[in-house]
Amino acid sequence: MAGKLFVISGPSGAGKGSIVEKLMAKDDKLYFSISATTRPKRDYETDGREYFFVSREEFLDRIEKGKMLEWAEYAGNYYGTPAGPVDEKLNAGCDVILDVESHGMYSVKALRPDAVTMFVYPPSFAELERRLRKRNTETEERIQSRLKQSRLECAHAQDYDYIIINDDLELAAEEARAIMTAEKCRTAERLHILKEDKTL
Amino acid sequence: MAGKLFVISGPSGAGKGSIVEKLMAKDDKLYFSISATTRPKRDYETDGREYFFVSREEFLDRIEKGKMLEWAEYAGNYYGTPAGPVDEKLNAGCDVILDVESHGMYSVKALRPDAVTMFVYPPSFAELERRLRKRNTETEERIQSRLKQSRLECAHAQDYDYIIINDDLELAAEEARAIMTAEKCRTAERLHILKEDKTL
Repeated sequence: MAGKLFVISGPSGAGKGSIVEKLMAKDDKLYFSISATTRPKRDYETDGREYFFVSREEFLDRIEKGKMLEWAEYAGNYYGTPAGPVDEKLNAGCDVILDVESHGMYSVKALRPDAVTMFVYPPSFAELERRLRKRNTETEERIQSRLKQSRLECAHAQDYDYIIINDDLELAAEEARAIMTAEKCRTAERLHILKEDKTL
Repeated sequence: MAGKLFVISGPSGAGKGSIVEKLMAKDDKLYFSISATTRPKRDYETDGREYFFVSREEFLDRIEKGKMLEWAEYAGNYYGTPAGPVDEKLNAGCDVILDVESHGMYSVKALRPDAVTMFVYPPSFAELERRLRKRNTETEERIQSRLKQSRLECAHAQDYDYIIINDDLELAAEEARAIMTAEKCRTAERLHILKEDKTL
């Protein structure tokens, strides 16, 4: 039985990363997809841990051959999700979760219509602003730009299958876990098992 | 925010009743719908606990006025789900679960297309037979008839939204709970909240 593909998105500060961490901690058959990038590796990074580091030629070749589930260019570098490792894990029966922005979700959903998509919403934009300011590492201009970006990103929530409002991290992670469990109980998934089992 | 309507079905011996009990024990905002019937009340029964006991005239009148979500006749008596108490609970923000057979599910789904339907499957028919025999209260003929009935009922599983295979009661109840949680995270449900909340 192949695994299921999940997509999680949400603006910076909504707590997507913490939810994924909680999911991974309780599910050793869940694989978190690692992106590929053409940007140079930094000293503290390891190939295949933070990113798969590939050359520009290799990346463009993968795009052309349809080997990327989604990709984008930022500041002259390419970033994206290679299909290979995702399919490998799915075929081995693991679930896979992709942390991508909304444009990435649209691309994944177009290529893999059975992917289940979740959008993590902040409890409020006031709280999101508070969280961004708490990091205390950015200029006012940068914070305003991030908030604007967050509002734009949240406008895509309506195109996702599920919305998780991250007011309380434990509850939000529980909701994400429930969504993953429920999706595996869907009749289309289970009929397959029933048909394979000769005793049923 | 109104509650959600859930339907649970499954053959006798699949463990539907035990799953519902576990759900109710952990969720005090879940209402288990009580059926109405025209059969006479037995001494140990209380009106509104086991059933709502109503006259034949009353029952037929309710059917005619569209006040029954589903109904059927067995051995000369009518049984069914009155819409009134269900809607009252839903409007009060409680979730409602209906334990009905497949014909009842079709009727509920036709009247309430947003109802979420779950079918409880036995782990195998051999196990179902073992469970039915364990009760040790029935003739061989009656057991065979029940098994045949169970197989027929299971053929409807494909028309449900979700299938729960009750191999382990705790896991099965957890799946049912996850389905209920996930359904409340669906975008169509949550967008409603986001639109009402002016801070989002």
